[in-house]
Amino acid sequence: MRVEFRLSGSGGQGLLLAGIVLAEAAIIDGKNAVQTQSYGPEARGGSSKAEVIVSDEDIDYPKATDPDYLLALTKDAYLTYGASMKRGLIITDSTVSLDPSIQARTVALPILATASEVLGKKMVANIVALGVLAGIARIANRDILRQAVKARVPKGTDELNLKALDAGLQLAAQSGIPGATIR
Amino acid sequence: MRVEFRLSGSGGQGLLLAGIVLAEAAIIDGKNAVQTQSYGPEARGGSSKAEVIVSDEDIDYPKATDPDYLLALTKDAYLTYGASMKRGLIITDSTVSLDPSIQARTVALPILATASEVLGKKMVANIVALGVLAGIARIANRDILRQAVKARVPKGTDELNLKALDAGLQLAAQSGIPGATIR
Repeated sequence: MRVEFRLSGSGGQGLLLAGIVLAEAAIIDGKNAVQTQSYGPEARGGSSKAEVIVSDEDIDYPKATDPDYLLALTKDAYLTYGASMKRGLIITDSTVSLDPSIQARTVALPILATASEVLGKKMVANIVALGVLAGIARIANRDILRQAVKARVPKGTDELNLKALDAGLQLAAQSGIPGATIR
Repeated sequence: MRVEFRLSGSGGQGLLLAGIVLAEAAIIDGKNAVQTQSYGPEARGGSSKAEVIVSDEDIDYPKATDPDYLLALTKDAYLTYGASMKRGLIITDSTVSLDPSIQARTVALPILATASEVLGKKMVANIVALGVLAGIARIANRDILRQAVKARVPKGTDELNLKALDAGLQLAAQSGIPGATIR
């Protein structure tokens, strides 16, 4: 079992933290995990990419070569990384208009709206997205995810981020992806 | 130019954040950077390892294969990662007793004592260490490092962490390593 995640969006969306929490949850769950953040010319343009590999075995190559899951919170990220998706699933925000040239399986979910409208804080979109990814990919369970969130989010934001996690798990359960239920 | 850093210590020392700030500083300075955190059985034992690669060019392989700099804040980390050091420099905390079987060049600096005794907060040892690494490896300059610290440390801890950065740069300047001065 090796599962590759690529989390992409804009620079201010906190996807590095989402990747760190996902890796942390996997390790609490007894797996190995590697989290990578690449910075380069594209990062300067305002886009952001973090990757997480989760595996039962040692992880020799720590980068995603054929992601199982691509999260794309912006149109730019969707166009940049969607084109190279093969067997994996693309999870976009509902505000991203889909492009017919990108043929990988795609599910659009209201991640940004859930953060800003339901939770009242745009900045927790990253943890909503984390809940979506963990729920759909069935990484860890809710208790473990809560532990990982609490271990990694800034002090004083626990409660809000735990709500964001639950909202994300809920979106996953409603996504229509088989098995994406809250354990 | 490709510079490989490995930051090792115990789980609670915040070395992931130090690696993130180092990568951020490099990117503000116009370089490419990749930051990696690996979790595995050894992480569960309480040790922690983060890596940062900085390069003028694209970074194809994001892991350190022959680190230029190994930071080791604990004896365990020093013994675990010091043995494989070849041409690079080991930077240990002064509390770590050196082992004659580890032959790489080594400099011991009072990183933990500077954090707890000079700055009064053990938890900023990670940013002291960041200052040491950036100063010795001549990554970015003080202004850029300050920007990167402010961008990444938790809100409300800026002032303390900027002091920790300066203390680390000072340790680097006093380390006797040629060129390790504050720009």
